[in-house]
Amino acid sequence: MIVVMRHDAEQEQIEAIRHRLIDEGFQVHLSQGVERTIIGVIGENTERVFAVSSMAGVEQVVPVHRPYKLVSREFHPDDSIINIGKVPVGGKRVIVMAGPCAVESHDQVMQAAEVVQQLGLSVLRGGAYKPRTSPYSFQGMRVDGLKILAEARDRYGLMIITEAVDHESLQQVVEWADVVQIGARNMQNYELLKAVGQTEKPVLLKRGFASTIDEWLQAAEYIVAHGNPNVILCERGIRTYESKTRNTLDLSAIPVIKELSHLPVVIDPSHSTGHWNWVAPMARAAVAAGADGLIIEAHPNPAEALSDGPQSLSLPHLAELVHSLRALAEVVGRTL
Amino acid sequence: MIVVMRHDAEQEQIEAIRHRLIDEGFQVHLSQGVERTIIGVIGENTERVFAVSSMAGVEQVVPVHRPYKLVSREFHPDDSIINIGKVPVGGKRVIVMAGPCAVESHDQVMQAAEVVQQLGLSVLRGGAYKPRTSPYSFQGMRVDGLKILAEARDRYGLMIITEAVDHESLQQVVEWADVVQIGARNMQNYELLKAVGQTEKPVLLKRGFASTIDEWLQAAEYIVAHGNPNVILCERGIRTYESKTRNTLDLSAIPVIKELSHLPVVIDPSHSTGHWNWVAPMARAAVAAGADGLIIEAHPNPAEALSDGPQSLSLPHLAELVHSLRALAEVVGRTL
Amino acid sequence: MIVVMRHDAEQEQIEAIRHRLIDEGFQVHLSQGVERTIIGVIGENTERVFAVSSMAGVEQVVPVHRPYKLVSREFHPDDSIINIGKVPVGGKRVIVMAGPCAVESHDQVMQAAEVVQQLGLSVLRGGAYKPRTSPYSFQGMRVDGLKILAEARDRYGLMIITEAVDHESLQQVVEWADVVQIGARNMQNYELLKAVGQTEKPVLLKRGFASTIDEWLQAAEYIVAHGNPNVILCERGIRTYESKTRNTLDLSAIPVIKELSHLPVVIDPSHSTGHWNWVAPMARAAVAAGADGLIIEAHPNPAEALSDGPQSLSLPHLAELVHSLRALAEVVGRTL
Amino acid sequence: MIVVMRHDAEQEQIEAIRHRLIDEGFQVHLSQGVERTIIGVIGENTERVFAVSSMAGVEQVVPVHRPYKLVSREFHPDDSIINIGKVPVGGKRVIVMAGPCAVESHDQVMQAAEVVQQLGLSVLRGGAYKPRTSPYSFQGMRVDGLKILAEARDRYGLMIITEAVDHESLQQVVEWADVVQIGARNMQNYELLKAVGQTEKPVLLKRGFASTIDEWLQAAEYIVAHGNPNVILCERGIRTYESKTRNTLDLSAIPVIKELSHLPVVIDPSHSTGHWNWVAPMARAAVAAGADGLIIEAHPNPAEALSDGPQSLSLPHLAELVHSLRALAEVVGRTL
Repeated sequence: MIVVMRHDAEQEQIEAIRHRLIDEGFQVHLSQGVERTIIGVIGENTERVFAVSSMAGVEQVVPVHRPYKLVSREFHPDDSIINIGKVPVGGKRVIVMAGPCAVESHDQVMQAAEVVQQLGLSVLRGGAYKPRTSPYSFQGMRVDGLKILAEARDRYGLMIITEAVDHESLQQVVEWADVVQIGARNMQNYELLKAVGQTEKPVLLKRGFASTIDEWLQAAEYIVAHGNPNVILCERGIRTYESKTRNTLDLSAIPVIKELSHLPVVIDPSHSTGHWNWVAPMARAAVAAGADGLIIEAHPNPAEALSDGPQSLSLPHLAELVHSLRALAEVVGRTL
Repeated sequence: MIVVMRHDAEQEQIEAIRHRLIDEGFQVHLSQGVERTIIGVIGENTERVFAVSSMAGVEQVVPVHRPYKLVSREFHPDDSIINIGKVPVGGKRVIVMAGPCAVESHDQVMQAAEVVQQLGLSVLRGGAYKPRTSPYSFQGMRVDGLKILAEARDRYGLMIITEAVDHESLQQVVEWADVVQIGARNMQNYELLKAVGQTEKPVLLKRGFASTIDEWLQAAEYIVAHGNPNVILCERGIRTYESKTRNTLDLSAIPVIKELSHLPVVIDPSHSTGHWNWVAPMARAAVAAGADGLIIEAHPNPAEALSDGPQSLSLPHLAELVHSLRALAEVVGRTL
Repeated sequence: MIVVMRHDAEQEQIEAIRHRLIDEGFQVHLSQGVERTIIGVIGENTERVFAVSSMAGVEQVVPVHRPYKLVSREFHPDDSIINIGKVPVGGKRVIVMAGPCAVESHDQVMQAAEVVQQLGLSVLRGGAYKPRTSPYSFQGMRVDGLKILAEARDRYGLMIITEAVDHESLQQVVEWADVVQIGARNMQNYELLKAVGQTEKPVLLKRGFASTIDEWLQAAEYIVAHGNPNVILCERGIRTYESKTRNTLDLSAIPVIKELSHLPVVIDPSHSTGHWNWVAPMARAAVAAGADGLIIEAHPNPAEALSDGPQSLSLPHLAELVHSLRALAEVVGRTL
Repeated sequence: MIVVMRHDAEQEQIEAIRHRLIDEGFQVHLSQGVERTIIGVIGENTERVFAVSSMAGVEQVVPVHRPYKLVSREFHPDDSIINIGKVPVGGKRVIVMAGPCAVESHDQVMQAAEVVQQLGLSVLRGGAYKPRTSPYSFQGMRVDGLKILAEARDRYGLMIITEAVDHESLQQVVEWADVVQIGARNMQNYELLKAVGQTEKPVLLKRGFASTIDEWLQAAEYIVAHGNPNVILCERGIRTYESKTRNTLDLSAIPVIKELSHLPVVIDPSHSTGHWNWVAPMARAAVAAGADGLIIEAHPNPAEALSDGPQSLSLPHLAELVHSLRALAEVVGRTL
């Protein structure tokens, strides 16, 4: 940490800061410049240094360490590979997870699952617990939905990913599914993160729609610190002032995360764009930028969908996209 | 709802949309202009109209209704007054809630409570369950903290407000405190909203740090729709690109909410600015703009605080602020 | 400046940075911690230190100085007072500038001017050169508009503020008006800033709609560094994701600017909210937060305005607002 | 345009709006629903409809037309191809423009130009007029810089792109260069847009760092409406709350622009990321998403650059990137 003193800080104020920090067990280095004094602070738990911000003469406290350890590439230089059953995420293969936004009926899920299997994809997505902005929107089929997904898994040999929204749904999801999705709105629901950290299931942790990369990695750190190292990160668009797209897909997060962390990164081009016809170019861009996977909304009949129809691919469009992604993956040294 | 057709939409596409909407029980009015056709859609559950976005020829679906009812001023023209014990929020009186960010010790809470009482304020704040960005930060004293707050209530005759973060903590908070705070990070934790909607306690619903006013009112609608009408809204700063302040306090939300909703609005100038020396001007601005109350962090010794020290007022500074607010409230036709 | 080295930086990389910085004439202090080394850099023109970011082993370069001098309170502790004719901005008196968005006709300006004078305000606003988002919108009356403003000044004894958009309009504005307004879209039009810096006219520098406070102060620094110290800062709302208001008024900028700079700050509640009925509460909040003035759109007939009608106050509403501001100013120790 | 009336609008208010609009020559269709009345408005210059926002009973005015014509794909369904000399932008070929941020010396430009030529690229970039945030930063070599660029053009057979910042520099740039760049900070400098619209030179119009796609297309409309159809759009990152990258590259803008407009789109991965090591993945992503070109900062010695060194590729890194882009372009049906 760096403590930057005010231009007009008095010598005794500087001394007070110095003593306080030494008393707390930190090592302290002073750089006294013409304009202001800078204090370098070294030691454990440097987060506590922020407290001196309210002492007289301090202008600001600047953090220089990264606020996460277990998920950091600094302490784990090699890429982590997270296994969803036999499907490895984070290696050479680019994983495509596809399926409807919400589980709506038995038929709908089976139709989607059949196509997902035929395309050679291995993970089926579908929401049984739906966090919806309006209390009057369809809230999901809950356990009944999970059972339909489980049947599709058995029938088509697919892995299942679905969202948990609280302790109770988490227990159900852990029982019925292969990957627990933590949605964007729950990325900072720390009690839920702790709970999923106490399971062994792979977790797809979506970035909060207005969370920084640092906050996202700290949310992952919660899960890993509570015992579950199987975290897959998922970028799904961030909130900006631009309204043509539902959110702004932050693809730069891919190389940034690859530099900061060893965890795999998956991209959701459906929620981010909000329009099915923009999904394919963004899916291709994600693979070109180095994403380890994609999670894509596809529906047998988008115009009848109870949730997120406008951004869902029809199943033929999904097939077309997967075809183009295969060629692209190869040219960037991956398979799909 | 308005369905805007594409410039090049064909007549049969327009007809297909029209029939689909009529089949679903909507009334439909066509305006066929030189450049494009606009379809006005009227009826119940117009949210379902969004689904036609993926039909051929549609450019966009534009909502014109408000996505909430129970919290809307349209259907409840008079201001709601929410009673915290005998303390009415939303009437002529401006309510100031003050206290430490986190409950840290018995002494700390009693010192703060004594000052809060002496200043004639009636609500003490203090967090027992702390949602923290880092898993390594102080996570709160939990039930032990609630008991300290309850003791302060009894000793100083104050009402207590504290945060609940999941079902379990909610049960405890309902038992020990007078107002349940739902924090910014949980504003879209819909399972928690439903749960607090099933209690009768007053709820202070903080705006998500990147939530729109519409999303915030829909979150309030969740609580009211589940049976609890006692919602107080709290603006605490939104995330923007500006980094001098911790968040950007959106004071314009006060007149906007007053126009859209009958619920009271309280302002948190501490989290939004992140610096104690900017709290007082923003508190004054909030009262001048028509806020029904303030929630302010104050600590007996900010430089020793385990959480949010830099933005906490010392107790003498709190006293000074309250003094200046009294004069200001009067000039805008309120009391404090 | 602080150079933060990577966790795995090698000793010779650290040495290379150290030598490079010493060669450029900087003083250098090393703090070698367990996790990483931090290099404090002191000297003139520390901006050049950013260049070492691309050297091997560097994680980041963190600036600790403020990127402006002449406008900084550090080097000029007392408030600056900028005189518009005999009207001092930045002292005890809160200045209200009012008038139409655009000069549209002789009658319109004279009606507004008469009310401005009757209310005891001393500055009339009105745009003659209009930077409009669409090329098909009304672009302003240009010199003819300036002449109408000048006539209003003479007839009603008011000072005139109006916008310049390029070198040519600047020459005209300097000739006909009393304050040159630099609009939000031109805040980083550095050639225009240099040009206005070579005049002696007071300048109202609007904050860019997505500019940081640091960038805004650097824009002011351009003007002062080129010879014109008469800069008044104007906050007019920043771009955020919230769409209920046209922009989000950042009132926290008032105490922040007051701490960082000696220049006066004026608030524009009209462009920021975009709705006339939200102008009054925000104007009151601005005065309560410590603003040195307001610039408000008012029009004899808002529903007929060629520009920004929805956010313009009618003249009776302006009168009402000014009345309420007088009482408020007094309670915060100002006059109006 | 749609005029949405308030829930409690009275019949005579609705009539007043209706008459006003008919008097202005619009066609009007009323949809009277249970909750509110919606008025569809059709005709020329519908922008004027916004003015009724301030009439009694109106809730909001919702635009449904696109605020640009000449740049819209609606009225020009085929892709435009803009020729920079013999280099066509917007066709099958993906164009890479590369070179230093700023022209600093004769040697620097010649070294970069030689590599650009050897790599088979045809456009050299380099800034002679530099809009810098601080008045104390290097402001560019101006005409001397243009002359160096022109020499490089002649020696290496390259096209030259460089920025104009005002009327005066525009005249010089038109004389010495092949493409006029309008920078992000000048995207809404409408006087400059009008001036460049009166030339015949190809224009690279960068998106303002906080401009919406609609505002960007309207800025292009200014240029085309003033007579110059040769506009190339350039996305260079938008301002968001995320600070790991300098800006957030909005690659979704590619498919959005392709749908809305016939103009070519080029991506700048250097300014957007701000770090040279994130440039290559974002360049690849841009090509995969359908970009018509790239503009990339490359410098013979990034650590000595006077401007933007940290985000500049070294010349060997540029060569490596171009190589990987060639393979990628082919797989998406383009050449490079």
